[in-house]
Amino acid sequence: MLIESPAAGVRTVPVAALHGSVADPLLESMNFLNEVTARFPEAVSFAPGRPYEEMFDPACITEYLDAYIGHLRRAGHTEQQVRTALFQYGRTKGQIHDLIAETVANDEGIHIAPEAVVVTVGAQEGMVLALRALFADPRDVLLVSSPCYIGMTGAARLLDIDVVAVPEGVDGPDPAAVTAVACEVRATGRRPKAYYVVPDFANPSGASMPVEARRRLLAVAAAEDLLVIEDNPYGFFTRESEPRPTLKALDEDGSVIYLGSFAKTCFPGARLGYVLADQRVRAGDGTTGLLADELAKIKSMLTVNTPALSQAVIGGALVLSKCRLRAVSGDIIDFYRTNLNTVGVELERHFPAERRKSLGVRWNRPDGGFFTVLRVPFVADQAALERSAKEFGVLWTPMDAFYLDGSGARQLRISSSYLRPERIRDGIARLAAFITAETQSSGKDGQQ
Amino acid sequence: MLIESPAAGVRTVPVAALHGSVADPLLESMNFLNEVTARFPEAVSFAPGRPYEEMFDPACITEYLDAYIGHLRRAGHTEQQVRTALFQYGRTKGQIHDLIAETVANDEGIHIAPEAVVVTVGAQEGMVLALRALFADPRDVLLVSSPCYIGMTGAARLLDIDVVAVPEGVDGPDPAAVTAVACEVRATGRRPKAYYVVPDFANPSGASMPVEARRRLLAVAAAEDLLVIEDNPYGFFTRESEPRPTLKALDEDGSVIYLGSFAKTCFPGARLGYVLADQRVRAGDGTTGLLADELAKIKSMLTVNTPALSQAVIGGALVLSKCRLRAVSGDIIDFYRTNLNTVGVELERHFPAERRKSLGVRWNRPDGGFFTVLRVPFVADQAALERSAKEFGVLWTPMDAFYLDGSGARQLRISSSYLRPERIRDGIARLAAFITAETQSSGKDGQQ
Repeated sequence: MLIESPAAGVRTVPVAALHGSVADPLLESMNFLNEVTARFPEAVSFAPGRPYEEMFDPACITEYLDAYIGHLRRAGHTEQQVRTALFQYGRTKGQIHDLIAETVANDEGIHIAPEAVVVTVGAQEGMVLALRALFADPRDVLLVSSPCYIGMTGAARLLDIDVVAVPEGVDGPDPAAVTAVACEVRATGRRPKAYYVVPDFANPSGASMPVEARRRLLAVAAAEDLLVIEDNPYGFFTRESEPRPTLKALDEDGSVIYLGSFAKTCFPGARLGYVLADQRVRAGDGTTGLLADELAKIKSMLTVNTPALSQAVIGGALVLSKCRLRAVSGDIIDFYRTNLNTVGVELERHFPAERRKSLGVRWNRPDGGFFTVLRVPFVADQAALERSAKEFGVLWTPMDAFYLDGSGARQLRISSSYLRPERIRDGIARLAAFITAETQSSGKDGQQ
Repeated sequence: MLIESPAAGVRTVPVAALHGSVADPLLESMNFLNEVTARFPEAVSFAPGRPYEEMFDPACITEYLDAYIGHLRRAGHTEQQVRTALFQYGRTKGQIHDLIAETVANDEGIHIAPEAVVVTVGAQEGMVLALRALFADPRDVLLVSSPCYIGMTGAARLLDIDVVAVPEGVDGPDPAAVTAVACEVRATGRRPKAYYVVPDFANPSGASMPVEARRRLLAVAAAEDLLVIEDNPYGFFTRESEPRPTLKALDEDGSVIYLGSFAKTCFPGARLGYVLADQRVRAGDGTTGLLADELAKIKSMLTVNTPALSQAVIGGALVLSKCRLRAVSGDIIDFYRTNLNTVGVELERHFPAERRKSLGVRWNRPDGGFFTVLRVPFVADQAALERSAKEFGVLWTPMDAFYLDGSGARQLRISSSYLRPERIRDGIARLAAFITAETQSSGKDGQQ
């Protein structure tokens, strides 16, 4: 690309292409999705992975803020120290690290020193920090469970890090496949450094890892000298009353770097996430420190520190929950559970066994989270999405952007997080009509 | 560095060193400064470039938030749209771009389309976005006015971009030196891509560019095919009632990318900054777009979007000021002006002409901003800072970290932003005693 001046356009300056392991179509497909959504505001949209927002109340911001200020005062902060905490530059690793450490202990059974917590501008910044700290050499390769969340492939692209896909198995992310791909990568003279995975209700596939598979993955990580980057935005929203243990909770030898987010458990507008990085780092001189402190050095050059405002508001929410977010999130957990069930029930109603067999339509049945994936007998690309929006008033997310090789062309992602159940029923009816029409127009070749 | 597991420490994984154009001592000196500051809480500290914080009032957060919500309602937002704006994921380029465009028009005479504004997590993220967009090739070089703010050299280091220093002249950043260094860089087969400068009251030197020099710099940028990255955190805080025009206000051919920040004009805890990038970008297929949209693509992989909370609170402050921050900032502008004058007056009192000549002590007299630089006849390093803190109860910032070549060993930076005038008078007296003692102990060789 070239820059030209707004005036005569005489000068031109090259702009860096976002080369690397993922192609521009990724961003373009996201932009197209936003653009279609804007053009068809009346359509039922299963596209955004956004949390439901009807329960958000502006008054709660002040309530959370006051709760955090009260917490600081009880902890002995003077009024000047309270002002400093809210308004001034802050600690690079963050100022609510203690509250976060207590919350992950209560909610996830992860016991970690507050010093090992790095508070970030969403989990996205955590991805960039982790990759920048771990990847030193052009031969270093990031393995990702595929299909993969575009935030991680995007972060790798930003840092020009090579990414290799590890295909999900029928039971979700597959430890045996990690071993196989790691060996293939080494055979090419490159070095697998880390494996990125969302073990609970992955975006986009909705797939999860059984507990036994989690233990096998940790064994593989130790055997293959891989670090595991665990991303857990959806673990809260499970069908079972007892969630599965996170990889970090099962991790006994420091294999797991954990990415957390408050975007779904509190709200996205704070852009608050965190990294748990308790690995030890040894310097050349033999002195040791925490990986979290290495991440902080990088963060100081990226965002300096995470906004004190966001930390204060989310910190207040944690204080009000007594650092037990799960315990106070029953209603919203039930809401997402009901929505996910509604998607499954409505799909079943419109595509009973015989019918879906004849049409060649399939979908998975995630144990929780926001996403369901449909496999259809036609190419579910941007043109199809356009027809779906225009003629049937329903939006969804094409899956090809989540695959490094552009496969997944005959899959579409249904997000059930953002809509009320009645709207979901309406939307699935529209989707069923769209799928039926597309399948018929695409003809027999679709049946597979 | 090596990572070892917290357990047996069997596994080791290399961690990427923060190599590049700036050495680790930079961060270490900042860490040392924080550590000394913590160890000597009673010392008068001229070290932090922080804004004064006594006027911060937690109540104003709710006041600003309400003002922004009122602004949205007047603009026709429904209650649901207000909720979405505060709590949900947002526009990648930001949601207060229109308020920022109006404010820079009123306060800086910069007339720019709101679409060319990218709202960032502090100016620091803006630096990373600009560098990642512009620097494509290992031969590309960033020129920086030297001594240079460590945030920019840090951002370049994060992205492994080579940095070459352009020494400040007696009148501050020097256009002729930019031409000379650009030619030297080309002679080595490398390509100068951009020049980073703080034209008003630079951190750390306090130096500014006369208006005529600004025009010459823009001519040099056009002639040398350089983009200028203008960073303007301190332009507000001038001795004159009429501030100098920014480079961006004088820019007629799209040479200038402007980095703005609300950290000093509002408060740092929002971590809110912005980039003005109205350069046109032409794609291979001939379609054109805005550089701001290229920055947004990168931002989507770095922080997704700037926290809506921070935008709402700062947006409210802009609304309350009718997008004329300068007009409502008279008191704080006077405060910083008084503080800077107090530093000069007190230095003059303790080091009258004859005495400073015999001691070999000099300082500059900035027209505004937060910083004054002293040249002393001894090495003002960490050991000297330790003695200054321990024996004289006064802190300052060693200057060597602001130079790529580690020069500036006999300079120290005095920040006058964070203290009350009476505390400044006390602190300069302590500093004078320290400088006198050091000079005498360092003996004749110091006299230069």
